[in-house]
Amino acid sequence: MIEIEWSRLKAAEINARAAQDAVVILPVGSTEQHGPHLPTQVDALLSGEVARRAARRIAAAAPVLVTPTVWSGLAEHHVSLGGTLSLDFAAFFALLQGLCRSLVRQRFRRILILNGHGGNIAALTVVVNELAVELSAPLATTSYWLLAKEKFGRILERQQNVRHACEAETSMLLAVAPDLVDMSKAAGTVGPTEREVVDVIGTDAVHRWRSFKARTSHGVIGDPGAATAEKGERLLDAAAEAVAGVCTNAEFWSLPA
Amino acid sequence: MIEIEWSRLKAAEINARAAQDAVVILPVGSTEQHGPHLPTQVDALLSGEVARRAARRIAAAAPVLVTPTVWSGLAEHHVSLGGTLSLDFAAFFALLQGLCRSLVRQRFRRILILNGHGGNIAALTVVVNELAVELSAPLATTSYWLLAKEKFGRILERQQNVRHACEAETSMLLAVAPDLVDMSKAAGTVGPTEREVVDVIGTDAVHRWRSFKARTSHGVIGDPGAATAEKGERLLDAAAEAVAGVCTNAEFWSLPA
Amino acid sequence: MIEIEWSRLKAAEINARAAQDAVVILPVGSTEQHGPHLPTQVDALLSGEVARRAARRIAAAAPVLVTPTVWSGLAEHHVSLGGTLSLDFAAFFALLQGLCRSLVRQRFRRILILNGHGGNIAALTVVVNELAVELSAPLATTSYWLLAKEKFGRILERQQNVRHACEAETSMLLAVAPDLVDMSKAAGTVGPTEREVVDVIGTDAVHRWRSFKARTSHGVIGDPGAATAEKGERLLDAAAEAVAGVCTNAEFWSLPA
Amino acid sequence: MIEIEWSRLKAAEINARAAQDAVVILPVGSTEQHGPHLPTQVDALLSGEVARRAARRIAAAAPVLVTPTVWSGLAEHHVSLGGTLSLDFAAFFALLQGLCRSLVRQRFRRILILNGHGGNIAALTVVVNELAVELSAPLATTSYWLLAKEKFGRILERQQNVRHACEAETSMLLAVAPDLVDMSKAAGTVGPTEREVVDVIGTDAVHRWRSFKARTSHGVIGDPGAATAEKGERLLDAAAEAVAGVCTNAEFWSLPA
Amino acid sequence: MIEIEWSRLKAAEINARAAQDAVVILPVGSTEQHGPHLPTQVDALLSGEVARRAARRIAAAAPVLVTPTVWSGLAEHHVSLGGTLSLDFAAFFALLQGLCRSLVRQRFRRILILNGHGGNIAALTVVVNELAVELSAPLATTSYWLLAKEKFGRILERQQNVRHACEAETSMLLAVAPDLVDMSKAAGTVGPTEREVVDVIGTDAVHRWRSFKARTSHGVIGDPGAATAEKGERLLDAAAEAVAGVCTNAEFWSLPA
Amino acid sequence: MIEIEWSRLKAAEINARAAQDAVVILPVGSTEQHGPHLPTQVDALLSGEVARRAARRIAAAAPVLVTPTVWSGLAEHHVSLGGTLSLDFAAFFALLQGLCRSLVRQRFRRILILNGHGGNIAALTVVVNELAVELSAPLATTSYWLLAKEKFGRILERQQNVRHACEAETSMLLAVAPDLVDMSKAAGTVGPTEREVVDVIGTDAVHRWRSFKARTSHGVIGDPGAATAEKGERLLDAAAEAVAGVCTNAEFWSLPA
Repeated sequence: MIEIEWSRLKAAEINARAAQDAVVILPVGSTEQHGPHLPTQVDALLSGEVARRAARRIAAAAPVLVTPTVWSGLAEHHVSLGGTLSLDFAAFFALLQGLCRSLVRQRFRRILILNGHGGNIAALTVVVNELAVELSAPLATTSYWLLAKEKFGRILERQQNVRHACEAETSMLLAVAPDLVDMSKAAGTVGPTEREVVDVIGTDAVHRWRSFKARTSHGVIGDPGAATAEKGERLLDAAAEAVAGVCTNAEFWSLPA
Repeated sequence: MIEIEWSRLKAAEINARAAQDAVVILPVGSTEQHGPHLPTQVDALLSGEVARRAARRIAAAAPVLVTPTVWSGLAEHHVSLGGTLSLDFAAFFALLQGLCRSLVRQRFRRILILNGHGGNIAALTVVVNELAVELSAPLATTSYWLLAKEKFGRILERQQNVRHACEAETSMLLAVAPDLVDMSKAAGTVGPTEREVVDVIGTDAVHRWRSFKARTSHGVIGDPGAATAEKGERLLDAAAEAVAGVCTNAEFWSLPA
Repeated sequence: MIEIEWSRLKAAEINARAAQDAVVILPVGSTEQHGPHLPTQVDALLSGEVARRAARRIAAAAPVLVTPTVWSGLAEHHVSLGGTLSLDFAAFFALLQGLCRSLVRQRFRRILILNGHGGNIAALTVVVNELAVELSAPLATTSYWLLAKEKFGRILERQQNVRHACEAETSMLLAVAPDLVDMSKAAGTVGPTEREVVDVIGTDAVHRWRSFKARTSHGVIGDPGAATAEKGERLLDAAAEAVAGVCTNAEFWSLPA
Repeated sequence: MIEIEWSRLKAAEINARAAQDAVVILPVGSTEQHGPHLPTQVDALLSGEVARRAARRIAAAAPVLVTPTVWSGLAEHHVSLGGTLSLDFAAFFALLQGLCRSLVRQRFRRILILNGHGGNIAALTVVVNELAVELSAPLATTSYWLLAKEKFGRILERQQNVRHACEAETSMLLAVAPDLVDMSKAAGTVGPTEREVVDVIGTDAVHRWRSFKARTSHGVIGDPGAATAEKGERLLDAAAEAVAGVCTNAEFWSLPA
Repeated sequence: MIEIEWSRLKAAEINARAAQDAVVILPVGSTEQHGPHLPTQVDALLSGEVARRAARRIAAAAPVLVTPTVWSGLAEHHVSLGGTLSLDFAAFFALLQGLCRSLVRQRFRRILILNGHGGNIAALTVVVNELAVELSAPLATTSYWLLAKEKFGRILERQQNVRHACEAETSMLLAVAPDLVDMSKAAGTVGPTEREVVDVIGTDAVHRWRSFKARTSHGVIGDPGAATAEKGERLLDAAAEAVAGVCTNAEFWSLPA
Repeated sequence: MIEIEWSRLKAAEINARAAQDAVVILPVGSTEQHGPHLPTQVDALLSGEVARRAARRIAAAAPVLVTPTVWSGLAEHHVSLGGTLSLDFAAFFALLQGLCRSLVRQRFRRILILNGHGGNIAALTVVVNELAVELSAPLATTSYWLLAKEKFGRILERQQNVRHACEAETSMLLAVAPDLVDMSKAAGTVGPTEREVVDVIGTDAVHRWRSFKARTSHGVIGDPGAATAEKGERLLDAAAEAVAGVCTNAEFWSLPA
């Protein structure tokens, strides 16, 4: 099997991959509270897991690499519930700028920032816009659960897509790290209990910053009680398949900027 | 009629409005190429117009103010077509931070950043998140055409919502500044001609920065030939009504952060 | 008549103006308290008005453009009187840097930052120095009332030049926006009542930051009671004539840097 | 066994650890070229490994946590040999500032930044000085091989301490990830071949930035051929013991600042 | 005689001066080309000299201190003539911010930044405005030759005030460091030979950045041939007297901010 | 004698030195409390003194220049004892960046930052690393007492090297500025009285920020009572000789980066 993890390769092997114009997947997550039943690494673990599964699917046919996972992001909204390590935008930008500059200096050009945390979505759009121009390279970003939205909807029973510490995330954790899940605490923990902007305004087109603590006393949005490892496995594979499709889409990467 | 424009009021009148805990609408647009038939001020003009119409609807019943319009935003993707004044994120953030800090120091708390430019959406999410925490105030943001999406879809004939220099924007310009529209150049200018990320990938969940020039030779996305002043008037009123609804939604502004 | 406003032109028209090496006037003002009788937009309104009058005088003979007005500047000294939107230097610099970078990228080189607010003068000197070097372009700045100082002195009766919310500014507002002036509140409002650095030290060569509130309880420095629309018209024309002279002075723009 | 990894704990468990005033070990490494025989993750892997071993030694007796490993640092000197992801100081500082601010906001105070990369040493001294003052908390930093210098000297045969991709690092990799080591490429790879500042000047008191490429064609400094897994195990345990000693030294943490 | 130099005092003596609410003079100059006959330290030497002379005049009656001289400022316009060490505004601001923060933390409040370099004037106005607000302290700034303008005019024969490497500066150098002046090179070196903005526009109200090299081939503006040590002594004393007057003006320092 | 001080030279003389590829010594110190018997300028005075002595030794044979001394550095740990002017890292970096950029623009390349303050050591390593890469020039840094460590050890009687306000620094002050030393206050002032990190942990490999006030009530570390001018003279010459050796080491400066 072809090794796809940057951190496990020797420098010369990585340089050879650059010479092949490999796609680099840079997984970005968060370390933050995930309710009473899930560990704080969920978003980092899952973005890395999806990235590796995607890369392994295509490695035989297309050069690809997965960097280590950026395990902290914009998680200010979780801080008041504890267990959370958060960056502000300037630090997050500086970190990704440093990494992407390194990649481009090492002669990689096709970079996919694979996001696993809702709080990073808008920030990553800004990051990609600025770095694509600075580095004159086809950077792209996606959040795996939005990319595989349709399939996720078919797999999940009580929600349409990934929320937070929910049926989807709990299922995926059960698939890859069941020892880190305490299902006894998942039962009956359904969120949110408090009203959300979207309820009040009737659309998600208005954005107001709100802490999770103000929305859900236990830190969960969604229904983790419906989670199963089998669903988790299917979700991860659906996500990996979708990400692999982006990586190998030659037309996508060669669209002029 | 109650004056709602910050710039037209005396300081004491503004201070009185602060004492009433008025909602402040801060319109944000862009100054950028808008195809062969529209002036560069479209996004700035329309966010201000919607803000003023919304404020006038409610001024008799609820204290409200509209600041001058921030007329430059993130428009790097338009630069290569000319006519465009763009800020990077750091400058855009610094500008809005200065303005919002001023508002809060003048004792306003309820601030709605009303956006009129697609390129600002992600950035404003980041801005609002960081400033809401810094200022401990209920800042919010919305893009008027997303807020009134449903009504816009019913008014427009050849597209579902606002694109760029399109049926919608051209209609609204015909309503408020017909002398600035050259409909002779709108006819037959339909965009884009080049493929977009969404076409190639089959979903809008992947983001890649692309210049407008790479997507549409004439700078138009949508079909301006279908524009009429009457549609424009209806669009503006629909947007104003929706924005007014947010401003006067007491529950929204008092949601705990 | 040749259109001179960037915001009212189409992109192609602006690009044509760049090909002619047009002078770009970038008006910069402030939004701040202006005593009990004037609106907060005075400095922004007047810098824009002078810019447009100047440009219209010369447009037939020389390519020229006026950008939208930067309506916020360094107004910390007005904040404690209310009604004021202020930026710190870093934000002000970032904003003007973004705009001037855009202008130079769109192939304009001759840029005149036309100032309408006393608090911006020193900052604009710093801005122009740094950006002229960064952009290798002949940026320049002037404050209209200093440029037309001599003529202003001949027109005004109770003061030598523009102070704040004074005979001069009130006159110019009476000329262009009389509905925004409340002369009943101007009568008897003469400032400052508190001692100034210049009184105490006997020269204006010493600079200490002082809030307006510490210098004048009502926010006025000067005597607005002497204002007339006729004087205002003459002041604006004198300023416009002086600015036009700078714009069309070929030797000035071609002085080596 | 008591779980000591932040990423594997639930938020409530972490909050309980904060209430106990647990020591937090924040491992910091690098992702960079490590010669022809070692993977790029060496410094990140080893700082995390030492941190976890140290924490496990003491967890029964003293509250302790290990955060995920910061896997990128200041590695500009390795960039020209490839395989390297590097940050500049400003990004590195911003990242650690964000993480330490988060820790202190979650009510942790005793923070040990455990370094595994030579290029980070000076930077971490600066970081700790600034953050200790900003956060009024007893932050500390050490590099594991300097802390256990004496014991390392007794274990190693051909060098006194850790160099780069050397007897020491190769041994530790053989102990924890032998599948990632290619000893066939280690044989005969001894560095550096080029003269160093210390040779030329005769002391290590003079610092000049030099790339690794200018000092060693293959990226190795030291003699990896002497490495064994058994030595690696002893090195790791010596380092872990020393780090554990710092963590449990009550006098150290209560020294007034 | 009472020692007035911070650098020559022991910490306890400085702390005692702080307890007396001493005025601190912070001299700021530049290190830059000063024509063929003067050394590069002119501006730094003279601001320090004036500061010390002023402080010595008043030390018996009023507590006062002089810090070491900030010997680099904004001198980009001299760089192309060589011999010049220049900072950009951000570095200059950061340096003065650090020093003034230190002063205020050591319980000094009355700070006079005494300037000796034309290129710093506008920047120091910005610096003082921002730091006075940040530190809530009565910071002030003056340029010694503007403060003593009238007396300087009476002493000088061929120019009204200080220009650059001119009659005034050369005289003062002859007074304090004659061994550093080469009067054989001063004769016949009169500047500028090139046209200036003020000539072209007819007023000094327009500012354009121009290098000295573009204005004067030899780096001199003014006529150093008229310099004498006797004039220099008188100039320095006039400046010192004026600065001393500011320092001891109790009303000035107690003007509310 | 060849003049070696930048500040005492004319611009043309400096430019000639640049054409000779002169080594530039940039002395960096601090202004901070130095116990009850020494003035606050010790670190700045001594780094400059060593620089000048070193340069004078070699000037006849090798082109060399000494810039003015950067007299403020990272001295936060001294602030609580008073008399201290400190910069944070960002300001210190910006200042040195501005100076080194100026040097390289004036065509100097070989730059030795000569440090005289312990608190600057780590920071200068970071500074040199970043600026050497930015400027593509062989910047170097050393602290004079570490460079001459061996000789210092042979000269000093009660300590091995420079501490703070100690036998070494007091001796050097007695040699160059005896009027600034109050030996009556040195007697019996031996420090530190409080425990240090190195005592508690048993190695200097762990770094924790601690204020001097927490370590020594009087601000002294070492034993100044043993100081003599004769020792001071020998220390300074030993340091100067060592620095001169670095400056004239052609192999050192031509080591590839």
